Amino acid sequence: MRNIRLTVAYDGTELRGYQKQPKGATVQGLLEDALSIVCDEPIRVYGASRTDAGVHAKGQEVSFSTSGRIPTENLIRALRAYIPPYVVVKEAKEVSEGWNPRRENKGKHYVYTIFNSRTEDPLSMRYHWHVEEPLDKEMMSKGGQLLVGTHDFTSFQGANSTPADPVKTIYYIGVIQKEKNIYIHVLGDGFLYHMVRNIAGLLVEIGKGKRPACDIPYYLEAKNRRIIGETAPAKGLCLEKVFFSNEEIHSLIENLKQEN
Amino acid sequence: MRNIRLTVAYDGTELRGYQKQPKGATVQGLLEDALSIVCDEPIRVYGASRTDAGVHAKGQEVSFSTSGRIPTENLIRALRAYIPPYVVVKEAKEVSEGWNPRRENKGKHYVYTIFNSRTEDPLSMRYHWHVEEPLDKEMMSKGGQLLVGTHDFTSFQGANSTPADPVKTIYYIGVIQKEKNIYIHVLGDGFLYHMVRNIAGLLVEIGKGKRPACDIPYYLEAKNRRIIGETAPAKGLCLEKVFFSNEEIHSLIENLKQEN
Repeated sequence: MRNIRLTVAYDGTELRGYQKQPKGATVQGLLEDALSIVCDEPIRVYGASRTDAGVHAKGQEVSFSTSGRIPTENLIRALRAYIPPYVVVKEAKEVSEGWNPRRENKGKHYVYTIFNSRTEDPLSMRYHWHVEEPLDKEMMSKGGQLLVGTHDFTSFQGANSTPADPVKTIYYIGVIQKEKNIYIHVLGDGFLYHMVRNIAGLLVEIGKGKRPACDIPYYLEAKNRRIIGETAPAKGLCLEKVFFSNEEIHSLIENLKQEN
Repeated sequence: MRNIRLTVAYDGTELRGYQKQPKGATVQGLLEDALSIVCDEPIRVYGASRTDAGVHAKGQEVSFSTSGRIPTENLIRALRAYIPPYVVVKEAKEVSEGWNPRRENKGKHYVYTIFNSRTEDPLSMRYHWHVEEPLDKEMMSKGGQLLVGTHDFTSFQGANSTPADPVKTIYYIGVIQKEKNIYIHVLGDGFLYHMVRNIAGLLVEIGKGKRPACDIPYYLEAKNRRIIGETAPAKGLCLEKVFFSNEEIHSLIENLKQEN
């Protein structure tokens, strides 16, 4: 048996998310169907992040085992015939037996994009949340700092989510403005359902001046998912990269700090 | 009667182009329908550029006359209710009687985007032409230089286009590479049907080494629309800006030269 790792990018607009659903196109479903044809046996894939419906990815990681003999260098082209163009396998390589990106990853990097302008930009609207009211980037940044560290993130968990360990570590949150775009970079060891979108929603409320950044410790303390505001729309969120070494995480954080 | 100028951006993917057609959504048709409702009288708009089906715009310019009294500052919001989200009116201001962006413009700036990579990028594929074979950016740039100036561009005219004066002046062509993107900037006083896309198609063939850049003077000389290769796909093309002063054109060219 060979174990193969795929790096996958997708436009989530038309997708029902990563995880296989009874109905609708999902990343897992599309990959499993295509791989089962190409490898000529039933294939199960394991993904690093279960991105929601509408969420995009530049660097999702999945792995699968196969007894098929297709060379990894031919796999990308072979899969292309069976996967819609908005899901792209960017890299394929053989990894050691039992390696699984969900278990082995050391952290994930998400970017939430806000377009802060009076009028919408039709050429990037699939990939951002359009917020008309001016946002105070400094206050958003302060809010972000108060979330960094190891906390019980129950208050930031989506409603109706399956139970999971609510204690997660956020390594870094950076709010970077480039012209009318405000990018919220979030790096952490793991995330609850809707957690990044709830962080983005809260930071936008802070940026509008509707809530003070200094209330964040109380929101964490409350462990109540009704205490924070609305979940930011899925289309603004993108899984940038999955990390398998702490060095990579540190060097990304250093780079982001210099941009800020 | 008031004369009003609108700056309009659009994602051309779902559009049948700028010019009104018997069937399908067009920029002109959508704007005229919405303005006729908002101004409560039949409105005719005049656009600076008749972009093709699938071509995008960041700065299309249109004008219209109305006896309606809606303040220009309310117009953008009022129109939003009647126009699909992929067409956005970014600015509205009153201009002098008889001013018309088609007649008054001094030039237009188009950008053709090529994504030069082995694998497609699903998050920008609506806005570029994906070319897998490596392109020689220097040769493309050389080819571009040979098109600058006043020429008879008959060879670069689309098939079945309505007769138009084929003599046009290209002020500047710049080929700028940023990571895997190659941007072809084209500035000129006017363009024939498909002309920018035919220029992009030819420069890509030159970049692949299929044609030498030095043949360009012969293509121009031939005045034969069959002599150059295929028209580049519409989705890579964007109307960046329409210019109403020569100073603005010169300063853009200086900026682009520094980027290059």
